[in-house]
Amino acid sequence: MKATIYEGNKTFTVIDKEIEQPSNDEVRIKVAYSGVCGTDVHIYHGMMDKRVAMPQTIGHEMSGTIDAVGADVTGFSIGEKVVVRPLDDRKVKASDKGFNHICEELKFIGIDSPGSMQQYWNVPAFVLHKLKAETDLKLAALIEPLSVATHDVRRSGLVKGETAVVLGGGPIGLLVAMVAKEVGAQVIISEVNPKRIAKAKELGFDAVNPLELDLVEYVKSKTENRRADVVFEVAGVQPALDVMCEVAGIRGRILMVAIHGEKKPVDLFKFFWKELSLIGARVYEKEDYEKAIELITANELPFEQMITDVQPLTNIQQVFENIDNNPDGLKVLMDCQL
Amino acid sequence: MKATIYEGNKTFTVIDKEIEQPSNDEVRIKVAYSGVCGTDVHIYHGMMDKRVAMPQTIGHEMSGTIDAVGADVTGFSIGEKVVVRPLDDRKVKASDKGFNHICEELKFIGIDSPGSMQQYWNVPAFVLHKLKAETDLKLAALIEPLSVATHDVRRSGLVKGETAVVLGGGPIGLLVAMVAKEVGAQVIISEVNPKRIAKAKELGFDAVNPLELDLVEYVKSKTENRRADVVFEVAGVQPALDVMCEVAGIRGRILMVAIHGEKKPVDLFKFFWKELSLIGARVYEKEDYEKAIELITANELPFEQMITDVQPLTNIQQVFENIDNNPDGLKVLMDCQL
Ligand SMILES: NC(=O)c1ccc[n+]([C@@H]2O[C@H](COP(=O)([O-])OP(=O)(O)OC[C@H]3O[C@@H](n4cnc5c(N)ncnc54)[C@H](O)[C@@H]3O)[C@@H](O)[C@H]2O)c1
Ligand SMILES: NC(=O)c1ccc[n+]([C@@H]2O[C@H](COP(=O)([O-])OP(=O)(O)OC[C@H]3O[C@@H](n4cnc5c(N)ncnc54)[C@H](O)[C@@H]3O)[C@@H](O)[C@H]2O)c1
Ligand SMILES: [Zn+2]
Ligand SMILES: [Zn+2]
Repeated sequence: MKATIYEGNKTFTVIDKEIEQPSNDEVRIKVAYSGVCGTDVHIYHGMMDKRVAMPQTIGHEMSGTIDAVGADVTGFSIGEKVVVRPLDDRKVKASDKGFNHICEELKFIGIDSPGSMQQYWNVPAFVLHKLKAETDLKLAALIEPLSVATHDVRRSGLVKGETAVVLGGGPIGLLVAMVAKEVGAQVIISEVNPKRIAKAKELGFDAVNPLELDLVEYVKSKTENRRADVVFEVAGVQPALDVMCEVAGIRGRILMVAIHGEKKPVDLFKFFWKELSLIGARVYEKEDYEKAIELITANELPFEQMITDVQPLTNIQQVFENIDNNPDGLKVLMDCQL
Repeated sequence: MKATIYEGNKTFTVIDKEIEQPSNDEVRIKVAYSGVCGTDVHIYHGMMDKRVAMPQTIGHEMSGTIDAVGADVTGFSIGEKVVVRPLDDRKVKASDKGFNHICEELKFIGIDSPGSMQQYWNVPAFVLHKLKAETDLKLAALIEPLSVATHDVRRSGLVKGETAVVLGGGPIGLLVAMVAKEVGAQVIISEVNPKRIAKAKELGFDAVNPLELDLVEYVKSKTENRRADVVFEVAGVQPALDVMCEVAGIRGRILMVAIHGEKKPVDLFKFFWKELSLIGARVYEKEDYEKAIELITANELPFEQMITDVQPLTNIQQVFENIDNNPDGLKVLMDCQL
C-alpha cells in the first residue's frame, strides 16, 4: 500500500508499506477520498509540529469502505461504505459533563494520531458512521466539514424564516450557508475575496463584499430592519468581530466557529444592550454526522461544486504547494484509490 | 408635596410643589421608599446629563401605594401596594421581535422621564406590578434590582446542583448570588473589596478574593474539576473578563450583566474550545418582576441586610455625597413618607 507521511519542514513523502491487520477493536478502511482541510495546511506550514508526531500520516476528512474487521468488532461488514468521526474520546472524564466531543483529553485522529492520507487506515470501530449503499464516496469526503456546519447550525437554533448572516465564505462558511438555507432561513454571505464572492453567487447565495457596501445597512434592508437572527463568525478576523455585534438584531445569536488564537476586542456593551448571545461551536456530535450523511446522500445541495480539485494521493506534495500559491480553491480531495 | 430635583453639577434640590392629578391612563403613587442605584450615582456624577432632562426628578427603584387612579385605568384601587417596572415600551416596533423590555426606542422611567424620588409620582398604569397586602414596603424597594437578578438567573438556565460563580459582590452581584442559591445551585462569590467580602460572608456566602487565591483552582476544588456551570460577570472590569473564560467549565454559560463602555479583549479561543456561551442580560421582563415580588414577599432570603441605610428623602444631597465618600455600603433607601 501507499501511505503519505508529513516529515515536517513543508515536506510530504510517499512510501510503500505492508497493509496492517486491525487490532481487536479496530477496522481497516480502504480509503476512497481524503479531503485537505485548513488544519492540514496549518500542519504543512509547521504550525502544529508540537501536536503532530512526525513522521506521521495526517488527514481526517475522508470516505471509504470496510476492508477488514477486528476480532471484537460487531455490526460492520467488509465492503460497507463508512466515514470516520475523527474524535478519540476514550479519556473522557466526569468533569467533561457528557460533552465527549470536546472532552478535555480529546485526541483528534489525523492530528494527534495517524490520519487518512493513505490507502488503508486502521481506526477504532467507535469512530465509524455508516453510509448508505448509494452514498457517493467523493461527496462523502465532505461529511466531516459538513458536520462542522450541521453542528454550528444546530447549536444556533436557526429556524425557517429567520435570517442568517455568514461572515466568511471559505469552505466552512459556504457549508454553513448551505445548511442554513436548507433549514429555510434567508442567508446572506459576507466575504472579501472576489473569487469566493463569485463562487458563493454561483452556488446560489446572496453574497456581498463588506468593503464595498455597508453590511449592516444591507442586512437591515433585507430584514425590514430586524437585522440578523443568527450570525456565523467563520472568517476569523477583527473586522468580522466588529461587525458581528452590529449586524445581529435584538436577542441575536452569534456562533463563534472561527478560531481566534489570541484575545481580541469585543463590543460587550452590545451583548448587554441587545441581549445578544455568543455561542462557541467546535467540531460535531454524533447527530451532526448523521445529519450531514443524510444531506450528502440526498445530494440536493451544491456539494459537487465545493470540490474544486481531485488529485491522486501520490501528488500530495504538489497539492499542498499549489494551495499555498492559489488559496482561492475550496476543497481539494486526494484520491486514495490508486 | 416634597420632590427632589437633580439640577446637574452634583446638585440636588428639594422643592415644594402641588400634588398633580394623574392623566387618564396614569395612576398617582404615594411613594414609600426609593432606592439609590449605581445609575443614580452615575447621574449625580454628570455622566448621563445627555439623557436626563435637567432639572429633573430621578429614581427608579421604589415601592408605594396607589393614591389616585386616572379615568381610563381599571384594575387598580387606592391603597393597593405597588412597584413600578420602569420600562416605557410604548414605541415598540416589529423589528424588536417582541422583546419589549429592550426595544430600540425604550425609555427608562426615572432617567429618560421623571422618577420616584418624590412623595407622589404619576406613572402610566401599564408599568405597575401589584404587591400583596403583607409585602413589606421597605424590602419592596429592592424589587427592581432583584428583578435584574431574577432575569439574569432565568436567562442563565441555572438549575439545582449546578455551580454558579458570581464575579463582583456589589448590590447586583449579591442579589444574583441569592437568587442562584435559592435555585439550589452552589454559589461562589469573587470580590476584591474586603468590606464586601465580609458582607457576602455575613449573608451566608462562600466569598473569596481572587487577588489572594487562584479563583480557578478554588472553583475546581469545589466542583471535582468541573469548574463553573454558570458565571455571572457583575464586576465590569478586565480581570473579570479574563477569569470568566477560565473559570467556566465545558459548555459553561457566562452571563454578561456588567456594562462595559468600550470594546475589551476577550479570549474567544476558549469560547470555541469549551463551547462556552456568553449571554447578554439587560433589565427584566414581566415574569422576572413577578418572581422578585414572590421572593420579597416570602422574605426568606437575607434582603434586610442588603439595606445599609435609610434616610429621609430631604437628605438626598447628603446621601449622594456620602456614597462618594463611602462606596462600601450596599443599598441606601430614601424614605419618601415624610
Ligand atoms: N469550530 C470548528 O470546529 C472549526 C472547524 C473547522 C474550521 N474552523 C475555523 O473556521 C474558520 C473558517 O474555516 P475555513 O476553512 O472556511 O477558512 P478560510 O480561511 O478558507 O475562510 C475564511 C474566509 O473569510 C474571508 N474573510 C476574511 N476577512 C473577511 C471579512 N472582513 N469579512 C468577511 N469575510 C472575510 C476570507 O476571505 C476567507 O474566504 C477558520 O477560523 C477555521 O479555523 C472551525
Ligand atoms: N444588566 C443590567 O440590566 C444591569 C442592571 C444593573 C446594573 N448593571 C451593571 O452590573 C454591574 C454591577 O452593578 P453593581 O451596582 O453591583 O456595581 P458595583 O460597582 O457596586 O459592584 C461591582 C463589584 O465588583 C467588584 N470587583 C472589582 N474588581 C473585581 C474583580 N477583579 N473580581 C471580582 N470583583 C471585582 C467591586 O469591588 C464591586 O464590589 C455594573 O456594571 C452595572 O452597571 C447591569
Ligand atoms: Zn477539518
Ligand atoms: Zn437601578
